[in-house]
Amino acid sequence: MASSPKKQIKKDFNKMALALHKKLKGKIEVKSKGALKTKDDWSTMYSPGVGAVSLHLSKKPEEAREYTMKRNMVAVISDGSAVLGLGNLGALPALPVMEGKCAIFKEMANVDAFPIVLDTQDPEEIIRIVKAIAPGFGGINLEDIAAPHCFYIENRLKAELNIPVMHDDQHGTAIVVLAGLINASKVVKKKLESLKVVVVGAGAAGRAITLLLMKAGVTDIIVTDSKGALVAGRQALEGYKRELAQMTNPRGLEGDVMQVASGADVIIGVSGPGTIARAHIEVMAPSPIVFALANPIPEIMPADAKRAGAVVIATGRSDFPNQVNNSLAFPGIFRGALDSGVTEITDDMKLEAARKIASLVKKPTADMVIPPVMTPGLVKTVASAIKKKK
Amino acid sequence: MASSPKKQIKKDFNKMALALHKKLKGKIEVKSKGALKTKDDWSTMYSPGVGAVSLHLSKKPEEAREYTMKRNMVAVISDGSAVLGLGNLGALPALPVMEGKCAIFKEMANVDAFPIVLDTQDPEEIIRIVKAIAPGFGGINLEDIAAPHCFYIENRLKAELNIPVMHDDQHGTAIVVLAGLINASKVVKKKLESLKVVVVGAGAAGRAITLLLMKAGVTDIIVTDSKGALVAGRQALEGYKRELAQMTNPRGLEGDVMQVASGADVIIGVSGPGTIARAHIEVMAPSPIVFALANPIPEIMPADAKRAGAVVIATGRSDFPNQVNNSLAFPGIFRGALDSGVTEITDDMKLEAARKIASLVKKPTADMVIPPVMTPGLVKTVASAIKKKK
Repeated sequence: MASSPKKQIKKDFNKMALALHKKLKGKIEVKSKGALKTKDDWSTMYSPGVGAVSLHLSKKPEEAREYTMKRNMVAVISDGSAVLGLGNLGALPALPVMEGKCAIFKEMANVDAFPIVLDTQDPEEIIRIVKAIAPGFGGINLEDIAAPHCFYIENRLKAELNIPVMHDDQHGTAIVVLAGLINASKVVKKKLESLKVVVVGAGAAGRAITLLLMKAGVTDIIVTDSKGALVAGRQALEGYKRELAQMTNPRGLEGDVMQVASGADVIIGVSGPGTIARAHIEVMAPSPIVFALANPIPEIMPADAKRAGAVVIATGRSDFPNQVNNSLAFPGIFRGALDSGVTEITDDMKLEAARKIASLVKKPTADMVIPPVMTPGLVKTVASAIKKKK
Repeated sequence: MASSPKKQIKKDFNKMALALHKKLKGKIEVKSKGALKTKDDWSTMYSPGVGAVSLHLSKKPEEAREYTMKRNMVAVISDGSAVLGLGNLGALPALPVMEGKCAIFKEMANVDAFPIVLDTQDPEEIIRIVKAIAPGFGGINLEDIAAPHCFYIENRLKAELNIPVMHDDQHGTAIVVLAGLINASKVVKKKLESLKVVVVGAGAAGRAITLLLMKAGVTDIIVTDSKGALVAGRQALEGYKRELAQMTNPRGLEGDVMQVASGADVIIGVSGPGTIARAHIEVMAPSPIVFALANPIPEIMPADAKRAGAVVIATGRSDFPNQVNNSLAFPGIFRGALDSGVTEITDDMKLEAARKIASLVKKPTADMVIPPVMTPGLVKTVASAIKKKK
């Protein structure tokens, strides 16, 4: 019966979304914050008065945050190489996703954000472009860029720009997953650090989740891709997967999900529908925690996971409990970064952001390890995690 | 007494503009056009519903205008190489000017426009960047890019993009100047086509004004630079100035402004303060027309021009009659281009736009050859000039 939830899920929102988008013809607009009614308005908002501001900034460029949109403006940049879970659709098809993200930035955190979709997928070209357009922005949100390019692009931009750069598919997801695991471990009465974790999927999100969990003290993590567990010495392992294999899987397990799930406390799916089965859950340690995050169709449907014995279940969807929703993290993270003027979003800040999100659930239960996106004070709480070290 | 108007002019607007900019901290903001209140809002504005829009656009990219911001979004792009009349200040100092322009776009014409300032002044790099970011935009407004790069960049982008591209410093200015001359020629009872015109200044605006006046039928135009009249055979003339020399100056006059102004009907200054003197005007033909467009300090102050005999005087400033203000043209031009879906703004459209602007002054007088920017119906009238050929 794998096809019935799929059909149920798809029909309405797709039609509704197409109709809404056609009606709005663009989900964002650019508005003037100042009036342009009188001659004086014109002479101060624009020429000749604006020339004084330009001259001032030519002498004191560091004051751009005081005089321009840079103070509150984030670029949401995609090359369309990994649009949602839909694959490499290219620049234009990525645009509605980026527009939606910008709408969320504004509505949730009063961050001004602007979508820029790039008609190139060459990493060096993308780096050059983002650096060239960066002066007007206070932060860069990379989005829907496929692995492994996303790692290289983000690293280079973090090193070469003096404003915060974050690839949200990696770090936003990792932060919310960690927040959920902090609370899930309480529900099942296990220590976070001692959890045995299997990450099904070795893409951008899988790698970032693994690294952040390790940073949080989790030591026993096994990452799998379509060929099985990443393990040091596995044949034909290259690049970042090879690095992951060397950092993880301390017990050196080989084999498919079935083999490495045996005795695990947590399975995190960042793969695709059908990659987690009931049988996998049935061999886990007592009180299994299952995060099935593929969107819109999870790796396993929550009802199936429950029947297999899962105690805490999270998905990427809003119509089930415990939604791993990046919108819990990115608006507050950039709000905090813009307000505090940090030039980088560090691992420590991400850890702290995850803890802050977790703390918004006062009494975690199986159906409430992750707070809803409408939780009062969410953005402010997350933003407080992003500040300069004292 | 050349310094007293300069001082008077600068003090207030500069202070007021700095204070306003510091208060606003950015003159534009990005707003969501759709609500994000209910779960259904989220599921249609964003994931999962937005995926259907992405898939749709991957099959029918030509429908981006129906489903995304592309329909109404213009990029205002500068490399900061010629910020107002202030010179090569670079990207960040150009930002307040571009923000102001975007505010004007929205307030006057409901065009969404977004400023992108580039941290490069390499023409090939600029062309690559603009092409790469173009998918999300319905038009490109180039701004404050110095000659001669601006000509090359605009030509290449016009040829290689399928959306309208316009360098406003050239064409916006030329359109408004032509509009003003159409009416000024009526005031002095001369035929537009028979006017003898001297253009003082051979930069981006000077060249564009010359070309558009020629397109409008004016045949006797002499362009001068700091070394005197452009004339075929002048030594060391290269590039676009050489081309201009070959197209203009049919009487083959040599010499400085004083020499070529003798007997001229019109002097148009697109140069800098002090480059037009009373003596130049005194040797012109009867009923001199003087457009002194340097901003904020005109080539000659209107009172001085009047004392020298000028009948019609225009400047770039809002505090004198007849302001040659680009805002008369660019909002309507892009409004029309976006609405009609033209892929190029042609010379014929620019001519028509100039005639439409001129027509808004029902009875031209010396003090009213150019309509004020607040003229009711301005944007709609200009927009009607930009449409596909039947």
